[in-house]
Amino acid sequence: MKIIGFLKDDHKKTGLLKGNNITELSCSTIEAINSRNIGKFQKDTNYEVEEVNILPPVSPSKIVCVGLNYRDHAAELNMDLPEEPIIFIKPPTSVVGHLDDIIYPASSSQVDFEGELGIVLSKEARNVKSEDAADYIGGYTALNDVTARDLQRKDGQWTRAKSFDTFCPIGPCIETDLDPMNQNISLKLNGEFKQKSNTKNMIFNVYELVEFISNVMTLKPGDVIATGTPPGVGPMNIGDTVEVAIEGIGILKNFIKKG
Amino acid sequence: MKIIGFLKDDHKKTGLLKGNNITELSCSTIEAINSRNIGKFQKDTNYEVEEVNILPPVSPSKIVCVGLNYRDHAAELNMDLPEEPIIFIKPPTSVVGHLDDIIYPASSSQVDFEGELGIVLSKEARNVKSEDAADYIGGYTALNDVTARDLQRKDGQWTRAKSFDTFCPIGPCIETDLDPMNQNISLKLNGEFKQKSNTKNMIFNVYELVEFISNVMTLKPGDVIATGTPPGVGPMNIGDTVEVAIEGIGILKNFIKKG
Repeated sequence: MKIIGFLKDDHKKTGLLKGNNITELSCSTIEAINSRNIGKFQKDTNYEVEEVNILPPVSPSKIVCVGLNYRDHAAELNMDLPEEPIIFIKPPTSVVGHLDDIIYPASSSQVDFEGELGIVLSKEARNVKSEDAADYIGGYTALNDVTARDLQRKDGQWTRAKSFDTFCPIGPCIETDLDPMNQNISLKLNGEFKQKSNTKNMIFNVYELVEFISNVMTLKPGDVIATGTPPGVGPMNIGDTVEVAIEGIGILKNFIKKG
Repeated sequence: MKIIGFLKDDHKKTGLLKGNNITELSCSTIEAINSRNIGKFQKDTNYEVEEVNILPPVSPSKIVCVGLNYRDHAAELNMDLPEEPIIFIKPPTSVVGHLDDIIYPASSSQVDFEGELGIVLSKEARNVKSEDAADYIGGYTALNDVTARDLQRKDGQWTRAKSFDTFCPIGPCIETDLDPMNQNISLKLNGEFKQKSNTKNMIFNVYELVEFISNVMTLKPGDVIATGTPPGVGPMNIGDTVEVAIEGIGILKNFIKKG
């Protein structure tokens, strides 16, 4: 099922998305993705998608991101496959939702898109083994790991380049029933394909990532893991529209605006 | 004044610390550091420090840390002074308080101390100028930017090495009235001095750091900025006791334990 957060008449609500229809739920998105019986939360209120403002589906306490994690991206960059994931953190203040603006910072002159599959944690996870990781994953979302490439090169450390407000669009929904090992992932800039791959090309799969990261730090319900980007990353300009599409989840669309 | 968070009979409380005496306050630590009239929050309840468990003085949504930021540390490493601060983020799950254990991870064989001055934000800060930064600073605390040095070297990126649970002790209190430009800072391992400097040796002062970081990301009340470490960093072992002392704030003491 597809779970969304949305705003209607200034109230934050949770919904079950089916096609263009939203059924309101009497619970949080975290409770929804943890529920084995969503029926008990269903209200009689229904909306069309166009009637509401879609919010980020969760408010993560941290977004843990993985560097180079697609074999085809490593090949494109002529790099050896990493032995272990390289991780970095995007702050909660970088999160925006579907149809929100990505603000181009004055301090950068190259802001790149990076379309990614996002893992949404449903429970607190610490020292989890990959074979148990599915129990801690509530679902999957689309994510754009927006990066000020010039600042990334200048700093060496990636944090500043990836931490600007609005640099972590997530959404539009959390899909709870998805095979994360074989989904097409693509990104369009102004309607033109720029990235096209499949999650089967990941070097470390989602379960291995949950094991690796949860052995460093405790993951909280609603925390998000960004699983790395496929080949084809490139710059965006003010006025552009960027769309991350993941098979089985949907399309996360955002607009690049001047700061 | 010195504001602390503490646990008494399983209840989280805020207190005003004077010498060894704690006067209970009827507000959060954030409300206390924002208050111009702490008297109105003072209760009749008093404790001795030994009667309570001291907690981290705030629960930051992020800890933004600065790399090389002491002139004497740069000289020790034979490095040029940086043109701009290099930042990284420690997650909220790394925070512990005074007298808590630092857990030595099985995946590292060199865990280093880094004593630092911590800035505690009192208000939301975005695009703040250095000349206005004092208005957004609620006070200062001591901080240990614990680092798995071997993993830092291996990864190149610093996030994993610095993000383990318990790797960010802060405390014991927030001192609201402190000149951050001229305070002695030192660190003892098992009673022996390992780091000794003064905050006047910072390359970027606290106000410049608030400007730089708040122009990248919005800082929230309770967020902490770790301002970099002076010379003398080195390894800790299981069984060690580590103390960060900052003039005008106090001593943050922690114990290294096996995971």
